[in-house]
Amino acid sequence: MKAPGLGEFGRIREYFAPLAGLGSLDLTDDAALLDCPPGYQLVITVDQLVDGVHFLPDDSPDLVARKLLRRNLSDLAAMGATPRYYLVTSALPKTRDDEWVRRFAAGLAEDQHRYGLALLGGDSTSTPGPVSLTLTAIGHVAAGQEIRRKGARAGDRLWVSGTIGDAFLGLKALRGDYPELAPEHRDALVNRFRLPEPRCELGPRLIGIAHAMIDVSDGLVADLGHICETSRVAASVELPLVPLSAAARQLVGRDTALLAMLVAGGDDYELLFAAPPEADDEIAALARGLKLPITRIGAVEAGAGVRVVDDKGRDVPLPNAGWRHF
Amino acid sequence: MKAPGLGEFGRIREYFAPLAGLGSLDLTDDAALLDCPPGYQLVITVDQLVDGVHFLPDDSPDLVARKLLRRNLSDLAAMGATPRYYLVTSALPKTRDDEWVRRFAAGLAEDQHRYGLALLGGDSTSTPGPVSLTLTAIGHVAAGQEIRRKGARAGDRLWVSGTIGDAFLGLKALRGDYPELAPEHRDALVNRFRLPEPRCELGPRLIGIAHAMIDVSDGLVADLGHICETSRVAASVELPLVPLSAAARQLVGRDTALLAMLVAGGDDYELLFAAPPEADDEIAALARGLKLPITRIGAVEAGAGVRVVDDKGRDVPLPNAGWRHF
Repeated sequence: MKAPGLGEFGRIREYFAPLAGLGSLDLTDDAALLDCPPGYQLVITVDQLVDGVHFLPDDSPDLVARKLLRRNLSDLAAMGATPRYYLVTSALPKTRDDEWVRRFAAGLAEDQHRYGLALLGGDSTSTPGPVSLTLTAIGHVAAGQEIRRKGARAGDRLWVSGTIGDAFLGLKALRGDYPELAPEHRDALVNRFRLPEPRCELGPRLIGIAHAMIDVSDGLVADLGHICETSRVAASVELPLVPLSAAARQLVGRDTALLAMLVAGGDDYELLFAAPPEADDEIAALARGLKLPITRIGAVEAGAGVRVVDDKGRDVPLPNAGWRHF
Repeated sequence: MKAPGLGEFGRIREYFAPLAGLGSLDLTDDAALLDCPPGYQLVITVDQLVDGVHFLPDDSPDLVARKLLRRNLSDLAAMGATPRYYLVTSALPKTRDDEWVRRFAAGLAEDQHRYGLALLGGDSTSTPGPVSLTLTAIGHVAAGQEIRRKGARAGDRLWVSGTIGDAFLGLKALRGDYPELAPEHRDALVNRFRLPEPRCELGPRLIGIAHAMIDVSDGLVADLGHICETSRVAASVELPLVPLSAAARQLVGRDTALLAMLVAGGDDYELLFAAPPEADDEIAALARGLKLPITRIGAVEAGAGVRVVDDKGRDVPLPNAGWRHF
């Protein structure tokens, strides 16, 4: 069964054991130990990437690893949790050699250092299909302080971190759209598509401020819909308030239809939250402290559903909102 | 993007939400909460199944689900942990319809009830490749009491639960071998291949008894090798002592070469552990109490490596030991 190369256990020893943290038992046991500081609760999430669905076969394995990790970190941030541990599984076709695995592990190494978490365990297998990866991330949050999707109240303001639509435009640019775009703008957009920037510092700081929160992965409108549904409220988004990067602004100009596509797009990995008007100053101070824009884009209302309105308060028609796999 | 049928969120609502436990936040949040009882530690493990590698395309989805869950439960049992929670991911080709997902969830429902754990979260995606599933299982163990692979000492006895080799023979029977076998024996072997019986009751009861433990998934000899390596000891297995089911005994007869294949095989999901001679009586009492055979098969010695010997103490040559994916 053993192909030339490091083999299953060799890959673990060479590439993954150096990433292992306390509790991993050096990846030499059947399971790992998870420790929870007194007064805290653990928060757990899992996500997956499939070659040809979430990334392209030629994508650099270290970027794929970092995207996989960061998508999960974004989910932890959306609960107000601080990342601590992760487990990773890979199903790899035989064509992905030790070098691919080495680079994949190097990507994990870089980002686990950046975000302060450590590998606890995992599993690898061969597959006749495309590369299929999963990552389970575990963080902690002070007990009872987690921020949920439910909890938004009529009268709350809606806020979003960073900028919206860059990943959507980056994917279009990768596919050949916008040849007129300046190279630095093109790179900025493509990088946002290739590598999300999870708001791990912001998330935990919103404990006690945000009534409800979600990370924008399915699309701003679809994810706001999730908040509204679980909170049993309505929300309106003022399209002209949606924060755009310099690159996106250049492409959007006065094109309201494109702007509407950006709020229906996805892969932003920004934090979208509802907070009462009394929190305005604290939120402004947080934005300054983290050097991260946090923009008010709308309001929570009584009722149900999400409305998107233009600068005259008129409803803006939206393209098919939110990505569905089935 | 939305195909006819329930859709991604509909499948979660219909099939998976009923499986969700406390902390899952009804599967409506970005992540789930993990709670750890005071004085305990959480134990976590992850495993995966790929269509065409670990199961066959026509295998019943409920059996696939239960096998996926049980492989992980076996890893928890090997640490002495009691199962509590799990998360599940699926990458499914579009040909796997709602009915496949419904039956997959029904298998999880049956076994989570049997083993006393609950769903915490998960993720589903489409894939152009084969069905690819992962399951992360979480259990708890009294703090500092977990049983590890390391800890076996020269002079310890080696014990194994249940019977060895049934899954190996069951797979061969499925592939057309042993047409002479009585139907009830054939069914017994095939069932052991299709559905492992994780030793969840035994594992936690070996705390304070076993010095080292592992579950037999790669094969008895290969997994014993893992204990020896991490414990820095040697071990010998007396081949005639290896416990066989009635069905396996009929096939093996005096065929030492086939018996050697069974200890090199895998997928037994029995517990293999080292314990001092003083524990003999306690182990016998456990076996009686659980109505589960626990058989002494050899001894731990100073040195390195695993020897398999016949009834005259002569070394038995082994086929290629233990499954490797790469």
